[in-house]
Amino acid sequence: MLKESTIAQQLDHRTIRTFKQQPVTAELISELVAVAQHTATSNFQQAFSIISVTDPAKKKQIAAVSNQKYVADNGHLFIFVADQHRNQQIGAEMGKTANRLGDTDHFLAAWSDASLAVQNTVVAAESLGLGAVILGSILNDAQQIIDILQLPQLTFPVLGLAIGWPDQKPQLKPRLPERFVHFENTYQLPTPVKPDLVDYDAKVHEYYDLRDANRRVDTFTNQVQKRLMLRPAKRAELLPVLRRQGFLLE
Amino acid sequence: MLKESTIAQQLDHRTIRTFKQQPVTAELISELVAVAQHTATSNFQQAFSIISVTDPAKKKQIAAVSNQKYVADNGHLFIFVADQHRNQQIGAEMGKTANRLGDTDHFLAAWSDASLAVQNTVVAAESLGLGAVILGSILNDAQQIIDILQLPQLTFPVLGLAIGWPDQKPQLKPRLPERFVHFENTYQLPTPVKPDLVDYDAKVHEYYDLRDANRRVDTFTNQVQKRLMLRPAKRAELLPVLRRQGFLLE
Repeated sequence: MLKESTIAQQLDHRTIRTFKQQPVTAELISELVAVAQHTATSNFQQAFSIISVTDPAKKKQIAAVSNQKYVADNGHLFIFVADQHRNQQIGAEMGKTANRLGDTDHFLAAWSDASLAVQNTVVAAESLGLGAVILGSILNDAQQIIDILQLPQLTFPVLGLAIGWPDQKPQLKPRLPERFVHFENTYQLPTPVKPDLVDYDAKVHEYYDLRDANRRVDTFTNQVQKRLMLRPAKRAELLPVLRRQGFLLE
Repeated sequence: MLKESTIAQQLDHRTIRTFKQQPVTAELISELVAVAQHTATSNFQQAFSIISVTDPAKKKQIAAVSNQKYVADNGHLFIFVADQHRNQQIGAEMGKTANRLGDTDHFLAAWSDASLAVQNTVVAAESLGLGAVILGSILNDAQQIIDILQLPQLTFPVLGLAIGWPDQKPQLKPRLPERFVHFENTYQLPTPVKPDLVDYDAKVHEYYDLRDANRRVDTFTNQVQKRLMLRPAKRAELLPVLRRQGFLLE
C-alpha cells in the first residue's frame, strides 16, 4: 500500500508553474538537497553542484533568459550545474596536472549526474506536496547564466528547478503510446509513425495547458514538426559556450 | 507519514548489483516504463526511448562492454536512449526536411530527457522493494552498444539500468558535506578543498563496497585524483561516435 503510493504520485506528475506566497522553509530545502546528494553518481565522482538562487535581482535575470516570468516569482529556484571543477581542484591540490575532466566522456557523466539529481529532487518535492517545474529554458542564453552565477571552468548549467506550494492544478499531459517508446532487444520504431498517432494527437489536442490560460494545445506531431524549424538564436551557440567552459574539446 | 516515506527511501538509496533468481514480472516492467514516460520532458518532445534487453546473448555482450559480469545475470536490463530519430521521422513524414535535431541543444535535451527518466524509474523500482544499478559503463564502447541494439542516426545510448530483487545489502555510501555541493547565488567552492575533506575521506575509507567482497574503499580524494589519469581507450572516442550518430556536429 505504502509502497505503491510513490508510483501513483509519479504517474500523476504535472508541471507546476504557479506557486503560493507561502515560502518553502530552509529545512525543506536542506532535505531536498540531501536527497539530491544521495542520487546515484557516475563512478562516485559526485560531479554536480546546486546553486540556490535567492537574490531577487538574479532571479529576475534568469527569468528573462528563460523567457518565463514565473521563474522570478514565489518558488525556490535551484540551478543544477555539471561540475568537474571541484574534482579538478582536488586533483590540482594533490599535484595532478593531467586533466581529462573536460572531455566528452566526463562532460556527459557530469551532465547525467546533474540530471539524475534533478529528477530525484522533483520526486522528493512532490512527495511533500510541493510542485515543481524543470527549466531547460536556462540554456536560451547559457553564457548569461554562467556570468550571473559566476560559474568557473569545467562547470556548466544543466537544468533549473523551481519548487513551491502549488497554486494551480493542470491537467495530466498524455504521453506517447508505449510501443513508440519501449522496444525489445533492438530499436524498432513502427513506421510510418504519424498515421498511428492519430488518436494520440487527438488526446494531446484535447489537453489544456494552464501555463497559458486554458489554451488548448497543438497536436503532438505538429509540435514536433514546428520544432524542426525553430531555434532561439543563442541556443545555436551552445557548443562554443561549452568549449569556452573547457568542455567537449575532445 | 506517507509523504515522508518517499524521501526516507531516497535518503536510504544503495546501488544493488546482485539480484535473486526471482524474475521481475512483465506487469512490473510495464509499470516502470509508464513511470519513465511520465517524467518531465524538454518542450514535451519525449526525446528518449527505452530498450529492454532480454536476449541472453545480447546481455552477455553488454556485460562485456560494461566490464561488469553481473549485467548478464538475473536483473531486467533497460538501456535508455537519447532519441531525436523518432521526432525527425515524424517531421520527415510531414514533409519537413530542415533538421536541427542533432545539434548540441537538441542532443543535450535528449540526454537530459533520458537521464531524468532513468532516475524516475529508479525511485519507482525502489518503492516496490526492487534494487537498481545505473550503468554508465555501457559507454566503455558506445559503438558496440549502438551495433548490438541497432540504434539509428540521431539516437545514442545514455545509461543502462538493471533492476531486480535485491540479494545483497550494501552499506550506505557517504556523500560530500553539503557546503561543497550547495551554494547560494554564485558558485562558491571553499578552497583549498582537500584539507576540509579529511573527515569525509575517513568516512569513505570506512565504507565497504559489496561489489568487491567487502573490500574497504579508497578515500574520496584519492578516487578523484586517480580518475584524472584514467581513461578506458574507447571512452576517448565518444565524440567521434556521437558525430557518426549525427550529434554534436554543430
